[in-house]
Amino acid sequence: MNELVGEKHDVLDDGFVRLIDYFGSDEAIAQAARVSYSKGTKTVQDDANLVRYLMRHEHFSPFSMCQVKLHARMPLFINVQWLRHDRFHWNLMSARYSVMPKEKWLGDTEWRMPSSTNKQAGDALLDTTTQIEADTIQSTAYSLSERYYQELLELNVCREQARSVLAFGQYTEGFVTANLGDWLLFLRQRMDPHAQKEIQVYANVIYDILYELFPVTMQAFIDYQYKSVSFSRLEMNVVRDLLSKNINIFDLTPSERVKLLEEHGLDSKRERVEFFKKIK
Amino acid sequence: MNELVGEKHDVLDDGFVRLIDYFGSDEAIAQAARVSYSKGTKTVQDDANLVRYLMRHEHFSPFSMCQVKLHARMPLFINVQWLRHDRFHWNLMSARYSVMPKEKWLGDTEWRMPSSTNKQAGDALLDTTTQIEADTIQSTAYSLSERYYQELLELNVCREQARSVLAFGQYTEGFVTANLGDWLLFLRQRMDPHAQKEIQVYANVIYDILYELFPVTMQAFIDYQYKSVSFSRLEMNVVRDLLSKNINIFDLTPSERVKLLEEHGLDSKRERVEFFKKIK
Amino acid sequence: MNELVGEKHDVLDDGFVRLIDYFGSDEAIAQAARVSYSKGTKTVQDDANLVRYLMRHEHFSPFSMCQVKLHARMPLFINVQWLRHDRFHWNLMSARYSVMPKEKWLGDTEWRMPSSTNKQAGDALLDTTTQIEADTIQSTAYSLSERYYQELLELNVCREQARSVLAFGQYTEGFVTANLGDWLLFLRQRMDPHAQKEIQVYANVIYDILYELFPVTMQAFIDYQYKSVSFSRLEMNVVRDLLSKNINIFDLTPSERVKLLEEHGLDSKRERVEFFKKIK
Amino acid sequence: MNELVGEKHDVLDDGFVRLIDYFGSDEAIAQAARVSYSKGTKTVQDDANLVRYLMRHEHFSPFSMCQVKLHARMPLFINVQWLRHDRFHWNLMSARYSVMPKEKWLGDTEWRMPSSTNKQAGDALLDTTTQIEADTIQSTAYSLSERYYQELLELNVCREQARSVLAFGQYTEGFVTANLGDWLLFLRQRMDPHAQKEIQVYANVIYDILYELFPVTMQAFIDYQYKSVSFSRLEMNVVRDLLSKNINIFDLTPSERVKLLEEHGLDSKRERVEFFKKIK
Repeated sequence: MNELVGEKHDVLDDGFVRLIDYFGSDEAIAQAARVSYSKGTKTVQDDANLVRYLMRHEHFSPFSMCQVKLHARMPLFINVQWLRHDRFHWNLMSARYSVMPKEKWLGDTEWRMPSSTNKQAGDALLDTTTQIEADTIQSTAYSLSERYYQELLELNVCREQARSVLAFGQYTEGFVTANLGDWLLFLRQRMDPHAQKEIQVYANVIYDILYELFPVTMQAFIDYQYKSVSFSRLEMNVVRDLLSKNINIFDLTPSERVKLLEEHGLDSKRERVEFFKKIK
Repeated sequence: MNELVGEKHDVLDDGFVRLIDYFGSDEAIAQAARVSYSKGTKTVQDDANLVRYLMRHEHFSPFSMCQVKLHARMPLFINVQWLRHDRFHWNLMSARYSVMPKEKWLGDTEWRMPSSTNKQAGDALLDTTTQIEADTIQSTAYSLSERYYQELLELNVCREQARSVLAFGQYTEGFVTANLGDWLLFLRQRMDPHAQKEIQVYANVIYDILYELFPVTMQAFIDYQYKSVSFSRLEMNVVRDLLSKNINIFDLTPSERVKLLEEHGLDSKRERVEFFKKIK
Repeated sequence: MNELVGEKHDVLDDGFVRLIDYFGSDEAIAQAARVSYSKGTKTVQDDANLVRYLMRHEHFSPFSMCQVKLHARMPLFINVQWLRHDRFHWNLMSARYSVMPKEKWLGDTEWRMPSSTNKQAGDALLDTTTQIEADTIQSTAYSLSERYYQELLELNVCREQARSVLAFGQYTEGFVTANLGDWLLFLRQRMDPHAQKEIQVYANVIYDILYELFPVTMQAFIDYQYKSVSFSRLEMNVVRDLLSKNINIFDLTPSERVKLLEEHGLDSKRERVEFFKKIK
Repeated sequence: MNELVGEKHDVLDDGFVRLIDYFGSDEAIAQAARVSYSKGTKTVQDDANLVRYLMRHEHFSPFSMCQVKLHARMPLFINVQWLRHDRFHWNLMSARYSVMPKEKWLGDTEWRMPSSTNKQAGDALLDTTTQIEADTIQSTAYSLSERYYQELLELNVCREQARSVLAFGQYTEGFVTANLGDWLLFLRQRMDPHAQKEIQVYANVIYDILYELFPVTMQAFIDYQYKSVSFSRLEMNVVRDLLSKNINIFDLTPSERVKLLEEHGLDSKRERVEFFKKIK
């Protein structure tokens, strides 16, 4: 396992994630749970089943007994998202003390259009010509931003003020430590298709690292958390109704479907659309 | 709304919950979300729909903009459970400084048997004769514990040591403050039928108070969180399969059901039982 | 007091702080402490003395019973510093969803030189000519950054990617909620002369607001926290030695001073300099 | 270092602390700081000086990069105090699931009187006869509490209710994980002479373990945190005044001392007493 420590995993054009330190294991999680539940865990035959049980029933405290420390390099706008997970401990490069490195995140012909259903971003890439135009705009913006940053430093402006002209795509780096339970929460949100692609790639790499360290836990995470689907009170009325009838919902016409869902109180079109996404 | 402030809500035989202070409202939650999403919220027509959208998609940060402070009195063993929710701020009576009050929680002929499926506690009450026996044992234990506590104090033993002989059913009290998002997490766990009944009654009273203050939020909480049902990756394979076939699962024989679930990888009997509980 | 709610306090060239909601008071803090200490507080005559006692002895839990919510607008680089205080709850404008406003922080002829003793920033302003040069560089950098941001949006690049070319001086805004204890920790660090000037001005305005709401607490904060001075174990040896002798340390020659401090183990020149700063 | 892992350190009559897992070192703390400050740390010659600098200036984030997990056994009333440090992660024996062990904390002829100046507890032991009386009361209280607990279980009362008659001196155990920064906060409060003796002994053992793992950090903690002395704004006026005069404060008569302190605004007798304690 130790060979994983220190290995650099490239992310984006100039970022990385590197495992620095960790403790705990699937067995340690089971061991912690056995202290809590004592005789209550007798019926669970083995560690793997116990870990899966804990994940299924959201008994997260045994997962907090494992700790993982990474060294990561990421653009400022990703760092700001990451900082919002307030259980993480950070030691970040300081733009007050340090002259920031030249590297900035490049869109690299992966520029996306806004999604029609979601104001944040869609999956569709822009056409090739536009990709190149966007690359040119970004690299021009970056080199000017870097030039003005250096000019302010040359005027002997202090670093903490000069950083105001740095681009938000500027790379920064640091150490980040959290317990496994908090890493799972992070992954649940940031591996999600609604998260920004540029943070999804970090989440995916971290998932791979954690899978090496805690394979049973991570498989349980996928089965019971990440790929679980939650139905609302009203949606459950529909699901229960359909399961107890000889009806194939996909055989119904669109208007019959709407009618059925409305009968169970799903008045909102948006929620009906979400429901069908879940069951497809 | 202010008439709710200060009102005492009795809980258990000698506990209570009292709203001391709060700020925020359903409108304030929507207002906070509009700052975040700005133009992104244009399509949502009104505050209520926006609040419901936030709850459905677990965007919890706007709920943290509301704060609620309670004065509560509860037995020590309930207080210890409550302290495990580590986002709450407390100001508790200190048994180091204060002579603790005489009051202790009484089982009051509501003694329960252990559940067969769950090592913690079941719903079934013991028979009447046993109830009375248990009451007698408890009140004897309490009056002796109280007597020895007083005797230690009379010997001039300091309070922080004398408390060692107090019963765990001893009442304590204090102020507790948390934001609405953290109160919802608390309710989600403590209104759950698996929580200890003696903390469920606190959670239910707090739910009622919050419903008065934030009616839209609390209804959304019920619809999308508390009464939502989560299906695992494998369970969803079963659900999707059943919804796309003309099969009424309740028409199948027990062994046919097992076969169906096993075909989708639900090898564990425990999980099959859990699945049927969800869809009934 | 309510007239303070909603009032806009300008900070920097285009930022602000506005009190949105709060609960608690100096009296509520004393009331919370009396619940904890019960009879233990009898000897303290009044609320003000009790609040001062709590602050002096760092019993912070009663201060967490007060909550304060602000609406604030600040440059991104200040927001990132503020986010590091991980007990704060935020609802921030999202550059994924929203087109960011044009406003960016202007150095405004207040450009500072790096300090010689401190790599971050000094108090000394650059000379007038350089000030103007720096202003010109910054405003050029900003208008280009804004132009390229708009160009990317016009190419239909999604907002979450286009933001990469925004300048770090970009203004953002949002709601921020914390309890009074956490606000005090924030002020202790950010009103400090070592904090970046551009965050000190926010801290000072927030201090003024809190002083209106909690005058006794804030005076105690100044007396026992903000203007308190801490001496290390070795420094205390020096202080105790000097206080018990008829010696005026300022009458000693520099080399006699060094000798005296070294005799008490203060081998490090840096620490000797720090010691003299404290006692002057 | 690994030989420390797993070693049992006895605390009180039946408690213990055992190091289970950790990562980090004095060097790792310095390494984390160097990432933050980058070139800003050039002037600091070595890791030890850097660690001492961080501690002296309360730059705690690099300390959060080390994690320590313990297995501990302690009486319930100590556990409740410990739970108030809300940054710790716990996995505790559950009295809902488990029949609690028979062991309870024994005063063991170390019974203390209440202090006259402090309502909590003093250092003075009760006389020998009273010690023996107190021991007898406690052990009688314990054996009855245990008997009634068993009787309730024999009636088939569920564990979560039966625990109400357990004594507060009941031992419990579990795993506890925190980063080094939070351990230091814990030690600062719980190694303090004002903390309850029965938690001081845990803090002292944990201090010894941490000293083995992080010797430079722990020495810096002693020098700059634990044995530091803080003077209030008004006290500093006195200190500065005395240091710049040829006055030995201990040569003054009591009334001259009071006069001197009052001239600097120290009107409260309590604070004058506290001041003299600090400088003696």
